[in-house]
Order: sequence, then structure tokens, then C-alpha cells
Amino acid sequence: MPSPLRFHFDFSSPYGYLASERIEALAARHGRAVDWRPMLLGAVFKIAGTQPLTSVPLKGDYTRRDLPRSARFHGIEFRMPSTFPIATQAPARIVVWQRSVDPGGCAAIVRALYRAYFVENRDISNADVAADAAATTGVSRDGARAAIDDPAIKDALRRDVDAAIAAGVFGSPFVFVDDEPFWGLDRFEQIDRWLAQGGF
Amino acid sequence: MPSPLRFHFDFSSPYGYLASERIEALAARHGRAVDWRPMLLGAVFKIAGTQPLTSVPLKGDYTRRDLPRSARFHGIEFRMPSTFPIATQAPARIVVWQRSVDPGGCAAIVRALYRAYFVENRDISNADVAADAAATTGVSRDGARAAIDDPAIKDALRRDVDAAIAAGVFGSPFVFVDDEPFWGLDRFEQIDRWLAQGGF
Repeated sequence: MPSPLRFHFDFSSPYGYLASERIEALAARHGRAVDWRPMLLGAVFKIAGTQPLTSVPLKGDYTRRDLPRSARFHGIEFRMPSTFPIATQAPARIVVWQRSVDPGGCAAIVRALYRAYFVENRDISNADVAADAAATTGVSRDGARAAIDDPAIKDALRRDVDAAIAAGVFGSPFVFVDDEPFWGLDRFEQIDRWLAQGGF
Repeated sequence: MPSPLRFHFDFSSPYGYLASERIEALAARHGRAVDWRPMLLGAVFKIAGTQPLTSVPLKGDYTRRDLPRSARFHGIEFRMPSTFPIATQAPARIVVWQRSVDPGGCAAIVRALYRAYFVENRDISNADVAADAAATTGVSRDGARAAIDDPAIKDALRRDVDAAIAAGVFGSPFVFVDDEPFWGLDRFEQIDRWLAQGGF
């Protein structure tokens, strides 16, 4: 059984959202599953001395134009949220909790949370909003809400983020195919060829 | 006659080099020419508070892996130069000079200079090395060498760089299709569709 594609993403990352809508089909084409790894880019920004794309002079204006264009190019519904960026501990912890209960449910939860933010313009940094969005997939609303304040889940997310950074993750989306790192939706074609040919 | 694709690049930019090897074919498929616009990313870094990719913690390691992989993916010869990054006034001024003499000769000169640096590992920040590389395309070696110290050419390059930044250029490669901006070789597929469909 080949290892799953490890998909690192931040819930506040628009390109992470676009990639989340494509990663499952890409993995499935090659008989792979997806290991959903929410992370907190804020921790990376501190280490790398970088900042959210939209805050960088010049780059910010371009990004606000590139995002809806890239969404149209890939045929993905997208609307820039009115509050951006946001803290993403709440949705990230829900995914960490779901992974501990039933990893198979993560894909639907990630999609529901990401769409709540990048399609429905709902502020998923709010614990109740995040729990409501997760509950639309059929999981327990109370379970999801409780996970956000659960010290064990908080610790697990913190360990995940540290491990991701130690592995070299500095942006979102970031995918590992076995040990090979790929940054960005822009690298999905390289991933496709890498999986088909076993490297190149 | 449709307007040429305006191709902004820095001679020290590895992704700019990779893109320079693909932009002409892309433009030609849609009956367009290429307007070669060397720029100086150092001026952008000052404004945007950014720095060369390879100098950013975490991102630097990834980039050193992604570059040769992306070159293999696109089937382009590439070798990371032993001195990197470099100042690129000398090669940029040669292109500005060539454009004033005969714009049709720019493509060959850009290719010769870029390959001298990213294939042959020659330090084109050196005026004599840059003039030698340009001369391999058949232009006057003395003319190219003199252009590097010509105050009028220096001014013209400075105006070009200012104009590029005013237009929103913050990275290399950066392409304008009419007024639509595209950053990176990663956007060449979007450019292709944009040209085919007149936008999307």
C-alpha cells in the first residue's frame, strides 16, 4: 500500500483552499489517499521572516487579482473573505480531533470548513462558526466544539505544526509525496508526473 | 497587429531563466512577439521588503531542490551558479542597448547571457564576461562592452526599472498580456488560455 500524500495547509490560505479542491482527485488517480495536516502559518512567518501574501507591497495587489483568476482557471468557486487573514486554531483543531476519531472523515470536514470561509464568507476563526460548519458533514457539533478547547487536541496540533516546520514546510499548500516536497497548487502537474513515473 | 508579450526578468533569477526558454514559443503560438524587459530585482526587494528566494529560511532549501527539478520537468538545461545571486546591471544594459539598435536581436542576446550564467556558470555580473557572451550572437563585442558604461543606457535601464515597478512588477519572471499581469513560469498555462480565449 503506497503512503498517502501528506497535504499541509492553513485554513486562512486561499491557495490552500484551491488545492484542497484538487488534491483528492490527484491522489486517487495514482491509488493514493490524502493525509490532511492543518498547520498554522503564523508560526512559519515568525521563523522565515515572511508575512501573508496580501500584506506584501506590490505582491498583495497582484495576489488579489491572481486568486479569483486562478479559481476561474481551475473551475473552483471562490470569494475573497471580508476578514482576512484569520487565526485558524479553531478549524485546525477540529481536523486534528477528527483524525483521532476517524481519519476517513477529514476530507469532508476540511472541505466544509474551507468552503464556509472562502465561498460563504463565514469567519471560521470563531469556534462556534467552525463547529457549525463541521457539523454539516454529520459529525457531532458538540464534539467538534469541545475539541477546540481540549488541551490534548491543542497539544497535538502544536506537535503537528512543529513537525511540519521541522520537515521544511513554509507555505500552504505544501505536499509531500513520500519524502519529496512540493509547494503550491502550481506544482500539482509535477506531482502528477512524479507519481506516474516514480520521480523524474 | 496584437501587442507583444512584455516579459520582465532579472538575469539573476533562475525561474526567469527557465521562463525565458519558453516565452517565445508561447507567444508565437498566438501570433505574438516578445518585448524583453530586463529589470533589477534589488530595487523591488527594497520596496517590498522581500529578499532573494534562496536567502529565506526554509524557502531557500526548498528552492534549491525545486529549481533543478523544475528544469528537468520542463526539459531545460540548468546548473545552479557557484556565485548567486549577482548584480545584473551589466547584462541588463546590454539588452537595453540592443533594443535601441535592433529589438529583433534581443531574444538571442538574452538567451546567450542567461545560458552563460545558468548553464556555463560564468559570472555575467562582470562587464567583460557579459560582453563576451553577447558577442557570441554576432553583435559587436565592443559595442556591447561600451553600452555597459554608457550614461544614456544606464538612464534608460533605470527608467525601465522604475516603469516596471510602477506597473506592479515585483518578481521575475513577470509577464503582461496586454494589461493583464502574470507572475511566474507557473502561470504560463493561464497565459496560454488567456491568449486563446481573450481572457477567462
